[in-house]
Amino acid sequence: MTDFPEPLSGSAQDECPELRPKFNADGLIAAIAQDVASGEVLMLAWMNSDALKATLETRRATYWSRSRQSLWVKGETSGHVQHVEEVRIDCDQDAVLLKVRQTGGACHTGRASCFYRIADSDGVGLTVAKD
Amino acid sequence: MTDFPEPLSGSAQDECPELRPKFNADGLIAAIAQDVASGEVLMLAWMNSDALKATLETRRATYWSRSRQSLWVKGETSGHVQHVEEVRIDCDQDAVLLKVRQTGGACHTGRASCFYRIADSDGVGLTVAKD
Repeated sequence: MTDFPEPLSGSAQDECPELRPKFNADGLIAAIAQDVASGEVLMLAWMNSDALKATLETRRATYWSRSRQSLWVKGETSGHVQHVEEVRIDCDQDAVLLKVRQTGGACHTGRASCFYRIADSDGVGLTVAKD
Repeated sequence: MTDFPEPLSGSAQDECPELRPKFNADGLIAAIAQDVASGEVLMLAWMNSDALKATLETRRATYWSRSRQSLWVKGETSGHVQHVEEVRIDCDQDAVLLKVRQTGGACHTGRASCFYRIADSDGVGLTVAKD
């Protein structure tokens, strides 16, 4: 897969029929993984250009680990892989949404989703969600 | 609402019962908005500390506009407000998930969701989703 073309400016980016991801100053784009069956939002991670290409080519979610500074094939060690059914991009092409079939829990804590806690309305406490 | 306490290190952050958001070097945290009724992922935006506090207090989604460098109450001008039913935070507390009731389209293009285009498997083209 060749390199992605540069983003366009303004509304041209919103309507263009080409993938022109807008990476940030660190060369990264935010990627949301959503379970295609349940609709549950599983996690938010980051991709560089190579991670996005690998995800599109292999249909297995591949991210950029900011802590390890290396490509990270989700589930490579845990077995909790994400099979990617769709890669969506948002209007200005600075965020990606993966619709995935998740094997095992998406979260490193073993939970299905990383978003397992709800903020109390006082903005202080967190309550573990029942679902 | 007082300031948020500092994040903890490692797995303490994953299991702690307090909201300790981890803002990035720009003082921002990623926020995903999901329609509570349909499960559709609507958009990804950014919050600073004040935006997160305002969202928790008013239950109306409030973001930080990186282009305008100001607080942005979603729908303030368009009327397309987001009533926030739940604010979730992920394991390491560097991403927020809002479960919202969306009035009108979430996207500035008028569409329900910002994620209206699917990347073709060749990684080149984009196809507008039917849903």
